[in-house]
Amino acid sequence: MEKKKIAILGSTGSIGTQALEVVAAHSDLYEAYVLTANRQADLLIRQAREFRPAAVVIADESLYEYVREALADEPIQVYAGEDALCQVVQNDEVDVVLTALVGFAGLKPTIAAIRSGKVIALANKETLVVAGELVTRLAMENRVAVLPVDSEHSAIFQCMEPGNEVEEIILTASGGPFRKMTMEELRTVTPAQALKHPNWDMGAKITIDSATMMNKGFEVIEAKWLFGVDAGRIRVVVHPQSVIHSAVQFRDGAVKAQLGVPDMKVPIQLALSYPRRLTSTFERLDWYAMKDLTFERPDMERFRCLSLAFEALRRGGNAACVVNAANEVVNLAFRQEKCSFLQMPEVIEQTLDRVAFVGKPTLEDYLASDLEARRIAREMIGK
Amino acid sequence: MEKKKIAILGSTGSIGTQALEVVAAHSDLYEAYVLTANRQADLLIRQAREFRPAAVVIADESLYEYVREALADEPIQVYAGEDALCQVVQNDEVDVVLTALVGFAGLKPTIAAIRSGKVIALANKETLVVAGELVTRLAMENRVAVLPVDSEHSAIFQCMEPGNEVEEIILTASGGPFRKMTMEELRTVTPAQALKHPNWDMGAKITIDSATMMNKGFEVIEAKWLFGVDAGRIRVVVHPQSVIHSAVQFRDGAVKAQLGVPDMKVPIQLALSYPRRLTSTFERLDWYAMKDLTFERPDMERFRCLSLAFEALRRGGNAACVVNAANEVVNLAFRQEKCSFLQMPEVIEQTLDRVAFVGKPTLEDYLASDLEARRIAREMIGK
Repeated sequence: MEKKKIAILGSTGSIGTQALEVVAAHSDLYEAYVLTANRQADLLIRQAREFRPAAVVIADESLYEYVREALADEPIQVYAGEDALCQVVQNDEVDVVLTALVGFAGLKPTIAAIRSGKVIALANKETLVVAGELVTRLAMENRVAVLPVDSEHSAIFQCMEPGNEVEEIILTASGGPFRKMTMEELRTVTPAQALKHPNWDMGAKITIDSATMMNKGFEVIEAKWLFGVDAGRIRVVVHPQSVIHSAVQFRDGAVKAQLGVPDMKVPIQLALSYPRRLTSTFERLDWYAMKDLTFERPDMERFRCLSLAFEALRRGGNAACVVNAANEVVNLAFRQEKCSFLQMPEVIEQTLDRVAFVGKPTLEDYLASDLEARRIAREMIGK
Repeated sequence: MEKKKIAILGSTGSIGTQALEVVAAHSDLYEAYVLTANRQADLLIRQAREFRPAAVVIADESLYEYVREALADEPIQVYAGEDALCQVVQNDEVDVVLTALVGFAGLKPTIAAIRSGKVIALANKETLVVAGELVTRLAMENRVAVLPVDSEHSAIFQCMEPGNEVEEIILTASGGPFRKMTMEELRTVTPAQALKHPNWDMGAKITIDSATMMNKGFEVIEAKWLFGVDAGRIRVVVHPQSVIHSAVQFRDGAVKAQLGVPDMKVPIQLALSYPRRLTSTFERLDWYAMKDLTFERPDMERFRCLSLAFEALRRGGNAACVVNAANEVVNLAFRQEKCSFLQMPEVIEQTLDRVAFVGKPTLEDYLASDLEARRIAREMIGK
């Protein structure tokens, strides 16, 4: 059997590096055909030397010469810039595109990959947050499978049954590092506190999104588009142990859940191997050592970002795109200590109210709304 | 669409009455075509008047005239005796046979149903405990689907994926009413204490089997035959809240579980409607009101019946049949206060050692082993 050729967009990030571990463990089945990075040139070069892809892309064009020279002795094409991302995913040889870029930047390459009929292993949730309606429609039109890599959505996907309607999706949330803090305490939390996430290592951006629960809000939006389930039938349950990765309730009342040790390699591998499961040496759940599993209602007042996500879904159109853009601005500003924890939802909410609503956005509308929202949010932070 | 015609063997028991509730709730889809009872003639008569089956069977022949006269004004055939059970299930009109009889008595009618190609909704676990090898072979030869009704096995069945091998089955157990008792305390427990099972109502026999964990042991044996998984890959986990009904671990490490409010109507309905799920008004799991979920290793010393089940699987042949027969004897003896709680596993173990081992039993061998084991166990109790 020929190996599946994978394009890993964002190979130097948390998901990207774990995806390469999966590829390395199953080198009889998979081949890293394209690797891309935003700015981490040195890691990209090391990965290229190890996995010998046909092509690499460094998004930051100022690093192009550096990468090209470093790989001059290898038969690897080197490209730079955002447009190159959209081109490499269309390569005829590519079978699967794993979209592990961070933020809005994932949208255009994902759409390009869908348009050229590639299977999408979706790790960039912002693609569906920003433009869920457009992306799912394109996937349908191009008969392209979009396989979730987020652990929650992979869990839901694993529990689904063809032909049996879902009554409710139960999206579990760790609750983040500030779960038990009062409003008063939240007023003064620092990025350093947020970055000590209890359960696993993720990138900095998503770690802050976990602390605000904006990440869970985005996952609600992602779930809506991936599974075609209305927001009213998506329940967020805070489950600090993160053993139940999410669940599905069917209309007979039966609930199915996917459980396990938190390890992103499980959903990454499944997105590549689906519908088969491959043998793995990943850590197994230890039933007898497991802590008590607990479940709580999320507090939408302390974690207002979560309710803003539901509000964006209620409004539809470009609302989620605006929330995402404003969130990218405040998330960075918080990490740079230019914005407090509780200011984040405030800025997002006001941005949502100030950007002109577009009911049926085109890709160009999304790009424009994104820019406008960033401008407004930055302006507010600047004040 | 024509209605599915169901034969409910044991319609007056706990599973049987709940099955009739399901049939009543979906009378557009299902028809109770045959109802049978062991001795509860009055309830059988009431059920027959309500559901108007084509035939009823009262197993206790001394009650035949009583039932026949009571139903003389209805167009319902009335039969009596064990042989009649085997005949009615073969009726050409019957689509599904729900085997909700208690104990060894389920074996012969289930085999008769399989031989005439009926779909089996299996609620009589003893059928597989006693003669799992024979029954699964016959089901295979007759291309008959055996759909589990036990909530644990239904949970496992719901989590299975065609084409993906199971690495481990995780069979959850409430632990029964005596879970926290010391050996000393177990010495003096009474049937009345056992019959106060915390989580749900079941028949008296199975309630005692839950208290000794023999029931869980039988479920291990049942799981082995239903799913073709060796005993070494079946893990029993004590989970007193009984929210997770059981789980499956795949070879990539992912675990899938089925959860819900303990309600036998869910698996009963699914066994009838499979692969479809029907809308139900059954109580939904309340995530925010749920108690902490806990998990423990079962104590095979205090609950020796569980280890006897594993031992029977290890020995194979007629060993599980012997354990089942001895258990039926001690279970009744305990309820009649003729045998103490801790004597039960002792009698079963000694019976297992004393009945001649048969490696590849025929149906006749099983019947003979069953009689021999009962004789030996009764003799020991009599002493």
